[in-house]
This record gives sequence, structure tokens and C-alpha cells, in this order.
Amino acid sequence: MTNTIELNVLENVNSPEDVKKLNNEQMHVLAQEIRELVINKVNTIGGHCGPNLGIVEATIALHYVFNSPYDKIILDVSHQCYPHKILTGRKEGFTNPDNYYTYTGYTAPEESAHDMFKVGHTSTSVSLAVGAAKARDLKGGKENIIAVIGDGSLSGGEAYEGLNNAAVLGSNIIIVVNDNEMSIAENQGGLYKNLELLRNTNGKAECNFFTSLGFDYYYVEDGNNVEELISVFSKVKDADHPVVVHIHTLKGKGLKPAEENKEGFHWILPGTLDEKPAAPVSSPQTYQSVTTDYILEKAKNDPSVIAISPATPGAYGFTPEFRQKLGSQYTDVGIAEEHAVAYASALAKSDAKPILAVLSSFIQRTYDQLSQDLCLNNSPATILIYWGAISGADATHLQVFDIPMMSNIPNLVYLAPTNKEEYLRMLDWSVEQTSFPVAIRVPFGNLVSTGVEDKTDYSILNKFKMVEQGADVAIVALGSFFELGKSIKAYLKETTGINATLINPRFITGIDEHMLNSLKSSHKLVITLEDGVIDGGFGEKISRFYGASDMKVLNYGAKKEFTDRVPEAELYQRYRLTKELITEDIKSILN
Amino acid sequence: MTNTIELNVLENVNSPEDVKKLNNEQMHVLAQEIRELVINKVNTIGGHCGPNLGIVEATIALHYVFNSPYDKIILDVSHQCYPHKILTGRKEGFTNPDNYYTYTGYTAPEESAHDMFKVGHTSTSVSLAVGAAKARDLKGGKENIIAVIGDGSLSGGEAYEGLNNAAVLGSNIIIVVNDNEMSIAENQGGLYKNLELLRNTNGKAECNFFTSLGFDYYYVEDGNNVEELISVFSKVKDADHPVVVHIHTLKGKGLKPAEENKEGFHWILPGTLDEKPAAPVSSPQTYQSVTTDYILEKAKNDPSVIAISPATPGAYGFTPEFRQKLGSQYTDVGIAEEHAVAYASALAKSDAKPILAVLSSFIQRTYDQLSQDLCLNNSPATILIYWGAISGADATHLQVFDIPMMSNIPNLVYLAPTNKEEYLRMLDWSVEQTSFPVAIRVPFGNLVSTGVEDKTDYSILNKFKMVEQGADVAIVALGSFFELGKSIKAYLKETTGINATLINPRFITGIDEHMLNSLKSSHKLVITLEDGVIDGGFGEKISRFYGASDMKVLNYGAKKEFTDRVPEAELYQRYRLTKELITEDIKSILN
Repeated sequence: MTNTIELNVLENVNSPEDVKKLNNEQMHVLAQEIRELVINKVNTIGGHCGPNLGIVEATIALHYVFNSPYDKIILDVSHQCYPHKILTGRKEGFTNPDNYYTYTGYTAPEESAHDMFKVGHTSTSVSLAVGAAKARDLKGGKENIIAVIGDGSLSGGEAYEGLNNAAVLGSNIIIVVNDNEMSIAENQGGLYKNLELLRNTNGKAECNFFTSLGFDYYYVEDGNNVEELISVFSKVKDADHPVVVHIHTLKGKGLKPAEENKEGFHWILPGTLDEKPAAPVSSPQTYQSVTTDYILEKAKNDPSVIAISPATPGAYGFTPEFRQKLGSQYTDVGIAEEHAVAYASALAKSDAKPILAVLSSFIQRTYDQLSQDLCLNNSPATILIYWGAISGADATHLQVFDIPMMSNIPNLVYLAPTNKEEYLRMLDWSVEQTSFPVAIRVPFGNLVSTGVEDKTDYSILNKFKMVEQGADVAIVALGSFFELGKSIKAYLKETTGINATLINPRFITGIDEHMLNSLKSSHKLVITLEDGVIDGGFGEKISRFYGASDMKVLNYGAKKEFTDRVPEAELYQRYRLTKELITEDIKSILN
Repeated sequence: MTNTIELNVLENVNSPEDVKKLNNEQMHVLAQEIRELVINKVNTIGGHCGPNLGIVEATIALHYVFNSPYDKIILDVSHQCYPHKILTGRKEGFTNPDNYYTYTGYTAPEESAHDMFKVGHTSTSVSLAVGAAKARDLKGGKENIIAVIGDGSLSGGEAYEGLNNAAVLGSNIIIVVNDNEMSIAENQGGLYKNLELLRNTNGKAECNFFTSLGFDYYYVEDGNNVEELISVFSKVKDADHPVVVHIHTLKGKGLKPAEENKEGFHWILPGTLDEKPAAPVSSPQTYQSVTTDYILEKAKNDPSVIAISPATPGAYGFTPEFRQKLGSQYTDVGIAEEHAVAYASALAKSDAKPILAVLSSFIQRTYDQLSQDLCLNNSPATILIYWGAISGADATHLQVFDIPMMSNIPNLVYLAPTNKEEYLRMLDWSVEQTSFPVAIRVPFGNLVSTGVEDKTDYSILNKFKMVEQGADVAIVALGSFFELGKSIKAYLKETTGINATLINPRFITGIDEHMLNSLKSSHKLVITLEDGVIDGGFGEKISRFYGASDMKVLNYGAKKEFTDRVPEAELYQRYRLTKELITEDIKSILN
């Protein structure tokens, strides 16, 4: 790939005003230039590829027809915002590799008045647009409010709640449905057959999900044809009623491998398009691979085992091959985490063995279902929480809130394994038991293996594991921070001679009162480590437990804050999550 | 009302098997007898009235046609389960006033094999049914899976996610849509125009929400005609594909005042049907009435003020008159809490002044929207959380989890007023400020008025109020437990001579480190009181704060558990939430 792209048209496009001056031919060139910039950037630093390539023409047409930021353009999930950023004063984030990290991969109001919301989770744009439209109406404004939502995002309940309300707004709201026939993976659900029918009938079918809700409806078969888009957007501009414009686009358009492998090119790693060395003969085990191996083996021998993913199978290594092997023992529910949890609960209640995989950031979409559908019914489903960790993620994709969100719900058993053997034991225990709803926080990072089979009976709830008995200081190191705990113990010994106790709590949802009480006689200080936000989390329960005693407690984890692409190392410093800083704290308490 | 109802048919109906033996005439009598039992019971102890009266015939028909519990009947929200309970072995809970409290007002698996799930929140039945159906398919079963969902519940996102997935199940699932043209209040949204069209065309309209999703569709115009229902249910029984049966019923059928005032008779208080004394000339102020007075006054003077309710306006005194006065400055979004939060966020971001009212139990339905749509965007919306308190509620309607769920989300300012003056000051501050998303936990119980205007600037976050400075023991008493704190202080003084410090923290989402530090010199013990679950809540943050110091801390509140109609007084004893028990604890710590 080259980094020097000739910008004939884009050279002079610095704002949406400049787009309005272009003729058709120039817009075609502009589209090509945007595509090249996007491809170059994502191949250099990684990023969303297919979604951005598919929406280039629609973005040009929106900015040609509407007057952003007076008119509001609200992009759902906003991983398709690159062309929008390029056209709204941020092209140097794409033209100059030195600026590749200047702008986020999502809409961000702090960057530009053309971005109304910081968005990264799906299915929110319509509801947000209804609020913006209602505010306009209350204030007597005239601006257009436009939500741009992908077909995949329409499977989420919030999108439907928004549509149901948008339809009766009684004034201007324009919902552009960007139908590229894909979610991250395949689309799932009855709605998609209707979208197919609409595509096949050029939007003419009577049976129409959108008109059934009361929308005025327009269809654009070639959603990558900028003239057609401009023509329809011009028609609906200033509409005095709710409108859906259904545009049929090609995900990954203009990049052959992306057009051909839509799932693989939804998001790509740096260098994906470069010539590659031959793949290594064997890949090392990961927590993902041991999970998929476990599920395949289990499912083969037990037809009641079923794996479930809410639309992000790639995140946990549920590859197309894995899904195909599982066949009817796999369900992708679409972007529908609420349904996923209720579905898993009912499967478990019906003596099936569901294993639902979700990212920490997206389990947030389902608190009430965890509480009411799952835990209140004590359904013995298994939920695997992936990626739960302090990281340099975007503010929209932090994975640190799952512990406070989930662990304070009654009945749930939330487990934090620290190595492969423990993880597999917990997983199999969970799948086979019938007493508790269980979640497992799959460790983040490289796989740790002890080589020693774990034979723990996890039915004995809240039993912590005393890994090494010492004195004075006890380190309670949860899940993926167990390794940090080990390093603190070693460093403390080395620098102070203190032989600390090391505990692997294993359970997030309860404390081992017996063990904690036993520490009182020979310890002065307990420190807790958790790879997530401290507030409402695991460590505070230990602080509470010791509240009336002489034991001192220090809780370590993330501060309650939205961090935005702050490097992990910087966060570790900020939160004092290093062996040196924690040893410093320990020494200052003990002296 | 009389309590002696002659049961000619029901006398011999003890299970669904007995229903199957009845002829049409007997079923009509049975319906009448069920109605009388329901009316008598709800007028005696209170309960859901309209929903149960409307579904009598459908319940009889379901049990006539299907074979529960082999076939699974899953009632959405399940506040319409009374006829079902009467027909499934629990009629003595209705015939004998001594047994009126024996069974819950919701489906409950511990009561009967005919209840698959404990359900009380809406919009869950379809997802649960899909799980039950999929488990059946994995195991090669043949039973029918039936979800019964009201029109109102269809506005919730989880219901849509369920429908979208149900439609592609590829096997038997029967969704009975019980369309009584009402939610708790009026229905809201585009879907309801489609339901109206379907009713007006006897189900024949081409534009059909359900067929657009791919369902086979049946319509029953008289959903209170048991023969018609039996005929259609018999047709769809054992269907090998997903089916919707849309039945048009009359909410409150058979009770004239309930038919005429559907909202008022959705749920009634004991004695509603009895002759009543004249209403008192003036009602005392409540937190509800001061809220509605405030909103009306504010909205009159500021067209950007808008009140929002997700389908439960009655719970906070948003009467039909109140709603009518607000006109376009009021939105009922339907049962769509996710949309409600995103909508409020966008309104606030657009310089309007939204005030969203939600019950503690139902704010659970919107964690991710609070996090992503609202707090990450720092939108200055106001959310009023009602009913947050330890109570004798059903397990499905506990109002104790809002503090752990909400207060660990960054950026949110969650306030806990202790009296009218503080509440109104916080409310007005919140509505007028533009810096923070704010939630206010409206105090539960009788209104407390100090008569002294509060002039606090709540922009100075996390500043606790030292109400009385004492020594040795500090009582940090949050929100509606401030009164308990006062009583502990008095009792402690009286019984031990200790002059405790009394603190009103006012902020739930942060701690006043300066004040807490200042306590160290003259206090040995801090106790925290919160009217909700302790785990992940307010008090634990104070335990954490003092973890490395010599200060002792005791946290009081509810245990993390689902309680089910356990009387408040019993819970207070269980959780040691009385002045006597807490004083005992304090003495044992200090000695």
C-alpha cells in the first residue's frame, strides 16, 4: 500500500460547504479518494474497513443535500464515520499518517460540531434523533434530523423502541437505513427477510416493516450511486413527517477482498492487505481457542449444548468454521443482548445447556434481563464475559464495568479464573450444574497454564483459594490480576522481606468470610486487585467486611471514569497498578 | 361486594384437564365465575383488575386446547395470570379470602408446574418462549410453546428482539398477542396504528407488522368469545412454524367501571368498588404532588421543559389531567425505558430540559443507555427515580437495586434528598444546569418538610451536609433513611449518652473526602444507612475510603437477595435497620 494518495478533489474540500460546490464527476473522484484514504489508514493502524467503504457515497450525498451541523446527522454505532470525518474538517487524520491517531474511530463532539454524540454501541441513533427532533419542535426550529442506521443495528431493541416512537413524532425525522446485507457477521432474524423482499421488489412490496410502523418509505437500489442518493435525499429534505430512506449499499465497496469477505473485513488488523508470510504451522493456545475446543467437544457428545453469540462471534473466536460445525447447536441472535440472556435462561430452564458469549462492554445492554429473566429464575445458564480488563480502549468500548454491573445482582455466581485449568474446570462445572446462573470472566491476555488439573467443586460457593500462606499482608488478586498479585508478592519479599499471603478468590459475587476472618490473627493489611472499576466492585465488599475490625484494606482497580484511548500503561500508573507503586503503598501503611 | 360466590362450574374444575371436559355453556358460566372471583379479590386486597378481566376467555381457551404443563404457556409480565392460576390448581387463593395472600400476583414456578417462569417485568415472554422452543428442538420434543403478550408490552425492545428471533426459529412457536387497545395508560407508537388497521380490517390488511417479520398470522376479532378462540387455537396447535394469533379483547370486561376507565382500573386499591365517603377537601402534599406542581409551573414558563414517562405515569401522579395540561411538553414513550433515556439525553443535548420519571425497578431496563447515551455524552437530563426503598414488594418489583446499578456509572450525579425543600432545590438545580446528567432518588414515604428553603449549590459535587456535629460516632444517613439516622442519634444519646454526629450526604455518586477526613480526629466509628441493597452501593464507598485508617465502619442496608413479599418490618429486623439494633451494634464496637 502507498501512503501518497493524489487528492485532486479532496484537496479543496474542507467542510460540507465545499461538497455542495462539486459536480457529479468531482463527487465520483471524491468518493474514490476517500476510499483510498480509508483503505490506507485501516491497513496501517487497523480499523473498521467494510462499513466505511460502503457508506462513502451516502456520506457525500448527505453532506451535499443537508446542511450539517445545522441539520443533525446522527450515525448509529458510528464505526462508519470515517468518510464523515474526512468531509467535516478532519481529513488530515487520514491524509497524514502522523495524524492517524488524532481523531477517534467514532463520532466525537469534542472533535467537531458535526458530531452530535459520542457513540460506539449500536441501535441508539433513532432514539437520539427522536430526542433531537422533539427539542427542535419544542423550540420552533426547522432543521432536519437524520439518523443513519445499518441493517445489522436494526436487530437491537433500542432501535425498535426508537422507530416505534419516531413514527408518531408528527414532524421531520429522516431515518436512513443503510442496508449492506450484513451485520458484523450474517444478519439474524425475521426482519432481514423483509429487507430482502424490499430489495427484491425495488422497495415496492406491500409487506413492509417500516410502513407497518407508519413511516413514509423510499428505496434506493443503488446506495452507492451518489446521484440517486442526492435525488432521494433532496425529496425527503424538510419532510414534515417521519421518513425512512432504505438504501442498498455494498459493504466493503471498492476493495475486492472486503467485498468478498465481508465478515473478515468488517474490522481489520494493520497490514491485512500487505503480502503476508506463510502462516505459522501451529498457533499457541488462547483462552478463545480452549473455549471453542471445549464447546465443540462438549456439543458433539451432548445435543443439548448450545453456544450463543449476540452478533460478535469473531471477538471470541467463533469462526465461520466453528459455527458451521455446531450447526443447530449455535445461535447468533443478532445485536440483541436482551434476547440473548432471556433465551439462554429459558434454554437452561428447559434442561438444555446454553453457553452465551458476550463482551464485557456489551453485557451492559442487558442488566434487567440478567436480573429478572435469568437470576430471579435461577436458571443455570453459562455466560462467558470476554475482554473484561483495563485497557486503552475507546471510551465507548471500555470493558471495566461488568463487575459492578453484574456482581450485585442476587443469585448470580460470577467466577474469575486465573489460568486455563481453572477456567476449563469452572466452565465444565457451570455447564453441567443445574443450581445457579453462572458467569465466567474469561481471563484477558495470554493464556496461563499451570499444567495441574483443577478438581475444585465450585458448588461450594465463595470459597477462596489460599495459594500461599504468609503473614502481615494478604494479597487478594482476582482473575487476570492474579499474575499482578504474584509479582507484588515477589517484589515485596525482595524489597522488604515480607512474606505476603496470596489468595485467588475465584468468586467475584461473594466473599469467603471464614478465610478472611482467619487472616485477622496474623495480618495487618489486605490488598485487593481487580481488573475493572473499583466502585461497586469486588474489593469494596472486602473493605466492608473488615469495616468493624482492625484490619486495614486497600482496594486497587480502575477509577470510575470514562477513559478514551489512554494507553494501558498510563492507566496502570494512574491507578497505581504496578508492583512498585503498590509495594510503596503497603510500606507506608505498615510503617 | 360479597365474598360468597356460587361456583357451579368452577366447583369441579381443579386442573386444565377438567376444563377440557366442559361444553360451551359451561365455559361461559366458568368465565363468569372467574370474573366474579377476580373482582372480589382485587376489591378486597387490591391487585390487577382490567388485565385479568380481559383475558378470562383466552385463558379458558388456551387450557382447553393446549396441554399445560406439557405445552408451555408463558405469560408476559404475568399480571394477567389470575384466571390461569384459578384454572391450574390454585382457585382457593381466590375463593377463600383467608387464602388471598397464598399465591403471588404473578406466575411463580414454586407454586405450580403450570408456571414456567417468575415474571413481573414486561416484554420478556417471546424471548423466553424462543429459548423453550429451541430447547425442545434440541431434545427432539413435540410440545407447543405459547407466549401470551399484551399489546402494551410490544413497545419494549426485548419483545421486538424476541419476535425478530422467533420468526426464524423454523419450528413451533405460537405468540398470542392480547390486544386490548391499552397499555397501563394509552399505547404509544407507530405499532399501535398498525394494530388498529389490523383490527379495522379483521386482520386482512396487507401492511402487517407481524407478517413483515415473517410470522404466519391469525386474527380473532372477538377475543372474549371462547368458541372463536378455541377454533383458532386448535388450528395453530402443533404448527410447525412461528405463528402470531392476534386476539382483540376488552380490558376490564364484565366490570363496567373497569371497561369505562381502563387506566384507573388497570390496578386497583382495596375497596375501590365499594361506596365511598366524600373525598377529603384537601389532600396532603406528597413527593408526587410537589413534583407535578413543580413541573406544571416550570413548563408553563419554559417551553423547553418536557416530562417523560415510560408507560407508568400513574406511579408518579402524572394523571390524565396533568398530561393534558402539559400537552406537547409531555411524552409517554410506551414501555421503552431504553428509548426514554436516549430520548432524554438527546433532548438535553439539544438544550431542552427533559425530566424523565421512572420507577427504581424499571430503570434496571436501561443500564447501557444510562452509560452510553446519557453519561458518556454528559447530557444534562434529569431522571427522577421513584419508589426506591426496601419494601414488602414482590420479588419481581423490588426497588432496591438502583443505587448499585446507577451510581457506579461515571459522570452521573445521583442525588438523595431527605425532605421537600432539598428535593425541590435539587430538582430545579438539575433542570437548569447544563453540566451533568442528574438522577434524583425521590424520597419514599410521607413528605418531610423543614419549612426552611434550601439554597445549596449542588454544582459543588459530593459535598455532604454536616447536620449535627458530635463525636465518637458519625451517622451518614442517605435519602429516605435520614429519618432513621435521626432516630438512631436520639436513641443513642438517650441510652448511652453518646452525642453522635449526623450527616446528610445528599450525593450518592461520590464521597466528601474532606468531611470524612475531618471525622478521623474525634470519631471512632462511622455508620452508613441506605434504603437499598448494600452490595455495590453507597456505604461500601465509605468503607473503602476508611480502609487504610483506624476508623471503624458499619454499612447498613438490604442484603443482596430477592425477597418476595416479605413485610417491610421483617426486613428491617433481618437487616438490623432499627434504632435499637443499630445502637446495640454501635455499643458492641465501641466497647
